[in-house]
Amino acid sequence: MVTEHLETPAQVFTAIREMHTRGAPLIGAVAAYGVWLAAANGYASAFPDSHFSGEGLSSRSKTGETALDAASLLNVCDELDQARPTAVNLAWALERQRRVIRAALRPEQFAETNGPASAKALAQALLQEANCIADEDVACCEAIGRHGLALIRDLHNRHPDRPVQILTHCNAGWLATVDWGTATSPMYQAHDAGIPIHVWVDETRPRNQGAQLTAWELGQHGIPHTLIADNAGGHLMQHGQVDLVIVGTDRTTRSGDVANKIGTYLKALAARDNGVPFYVALPSSTIDWSLRDGLHGIPIEARSGEEVRWVQGLDRAGLPGEVLICPEATPAGNPAFDVTPARLVSGLITERGICEAGEAGLLRLFPEHQGTAVQSA
Amino acid sequence: MVTEHLETPAQVFTAIREMHTRGAPLIGAVAAYGVWLAAANGYASAFPDSHFSGEGLSSRSKTGETALDAASLLNVCDELDQARPTAVNLAWALERQRRVIRAALRPEQFAETNGPASAKALAQALLQEANCIADEDVACCEAIGRHGLALIRDLHNRHPDRPVQILTHCNAGWLATVDWGTATSPMYQAHDAGIPIHVWVDETRPRNQGAQLTAWELGQHGIPHTLIADNAGGHLMQHGQVDLVIVGTDRTTRSGDVANKIGTYLKALAARDNGVPFYVALPSSTIDWSLRDGLHGIPIEARSGEEVRWVQGLDRAGLPGEVLICPEATPAGNPAFDVTPARLVSGLITERGICEAGEAGLLRLFPEHQGTAVQSA
Repeated sequence: MVTEHLETPAQVFTAIREMHTRGAPLIGAVAAYGVWLAAANGYASAFPDSHFSGEGLSSRSKTGETALDAASLLNVCDELDQARPTAVNLAWALERQRRVIRAALRPEQFAETNGPASAKALAQALLQEANCIADEDVACCEAIGRHGLALIRDLHNRHPDRPVQILTHCNAGWLATVDWGTATSPMYQAHDAGIPIHVWVDETRPRNQGAQLTAWELGQHGIPHTLIADNAGGHLMQHGQVDLVIVGTDRTTRSGDVANKIGTYLKALAARDNGVPFYVALPSSTIDWSLRDGLHGIPIEARSGEEVRWVQGLDRAGLPGEVLICPEATPAGNPAFDVTPARLVSGLITERGICEAGEAGLLRLFPEHQGTAVQSA
Repeated sequence: MVTEHLETPAQVFTAIREMHTRGAPLIGAVAAYGVWLAAANGYASAFPDSHFSGEGLSSRSKTGETALDAASLLNVCDELDQARPTAVNLAWALERQRRVIRAALRPEQFAETNGPASAKALAQALLQEANCIADEDVACCEAIGRHGLALIRDLHNRHPDRPVQILTHCNAGWLATVDWGTATSPMYQAHDAGIPIHVWVDETRPRNQGAQLTAWELGQHGIPHTLIADNAGGHLMQHGQVDLVIVGTDRTTRSGDVANKIGTYLKALAARDNGVPFYVALPSSTIDWSLRDGLHGIPIEARSGEEVRWVQGLDRAGLPGEVLICPEATPAGNPAFDVTPARLVSGLITERGICEAGEAGLLRLFPEHQGTAVQSA
């Protein structure tokens, strides 16, 4: 693991796009801090190659106080929003920061300055909002774990003589959130509560987040687990070796369609075919209340085929390396996500409880979104 | 690609078990030649570590002619049969050689010797049978291609304005057979007939036979193709980008259940969910007429977890290398095959034509197996 210090919105943009940091909840929080960095350090653009990158966006006034260029800050929000298309948390977190910026245009919101908001006050407000997003994420993930724990406890009570067998895809752990993780939070809480579990970890090609991140996380926590090829889950379910599937999501529509790492849909099909409960864990920040049809409405990121052709890992000497797994001339395609229709989802584990995957269930838990405008198909 | 000369049954055993040679039809043919090698060169055991390995199994008589030890040869057949468990072609080819050996115990079968069969005559008969198996495989694969071509032509006629999009899993190409391949034979014949096709090649973790073998084969033949992660097929089918799935099989039951490379079942589920035809191409040598229930009757090979943990390929210098994709301590599981139930298979493409995946369809094409004894469940 590498700890990377991000000091400019351009660095934040690159870290999100190049997946130095990833996971829907986490990229939302990181982007929110990116807007704060723009305000605090005065960057007019998030793009690494922008002519404006590094340019101050506030001009020093005669009083020594900086005047505010809210338009440039809103522009930074728009730019950061382009870093990755599928996870809605990015747009959600940036929209929260946009609200803070717009509020600064109405000086009465910044009572302490008794006048037009200073850049300093705005930066402070943006930092406070980013902290709030991060803290809320921790609380959401903790609550998701508590609700999911009940599911695992129930399965354990049915077969107290053996570990509960859980399969997960990709990494929806604390490396993908601020803490706890979404899909992993119930696992951590079950383990901590003394319930024996065993986790089947899909390696999650092409970037192997399961093999590299989830396996590492579970190992650190002492949770028994076994790495498997993404191809193996169906076979295990056919033979009664999976009691429960829990995955995360990058965007969930108000009707319960779930965009998640490519391959999730295949696991959901196998779970349905074998009567295995298939749950999706999510903070409500990943719900796109404006969308109903996930299959046609959620943009699916097309990443570079090089991620399929070249596999990264550690060589025999323990050093970072990569190998080409196909002939040099072979072209590769790399859709990064797929959409699992709500009909295949047993339930959604949110911070407010578990509901069926559908509009009625979600609105029962989040009635405040009853009136959110829905995009026409 | 490496060409390996096999001179002893022990080498044949190792080549099959360690997958120097693979593919259900091909390992059957190779094993048949292994029995011939035992007879021709006098090896009493196929096992590399056997005490008998390399020992002559025939003793020179006073006349200079060798006496026959058919029991030892039958033992070699039994040993080679242990090399890999799932593909039935191995057992099928070895049973053909056992019949030759048993016939040699009845000297009237070897009229030319006018007496007890000589080791030389038996070796000659075993070679002849192995050649016959290999020649039949070529003819079967050619016929499979002809029947499958009709399917592809039909799809092309429906959408003459664009290539027919075919998805395949693993390698059921000429590298897995004596020539043509099974699943790839219709593709080669369609391409040669001028029908535009494009093939989605599943990389086929953990051993990447799709990336390494199928992509190479198709490239050699000039067939447009794109490598994808095994996770991607469902997404492509959801978006209308797959017209047809064709895969091979290692063992098909008389009721049409299909054991094939791990992950095949997941693709069959996605095909069914999206109305995409899912065909399995097979020479009848891969049909196990003694089995009905594939899910519980077909032994699934459990291979080493190291195949999941370490990915092989070429490093940046173009040299063979491998990388570890998970933490050093992470355990991995590696079931090598799964079983796709007949209900998910649109049809079986055999050398005698295409039939529905089921006992009635198969027996219509192969009525001679009507009376084959079926194992009780």
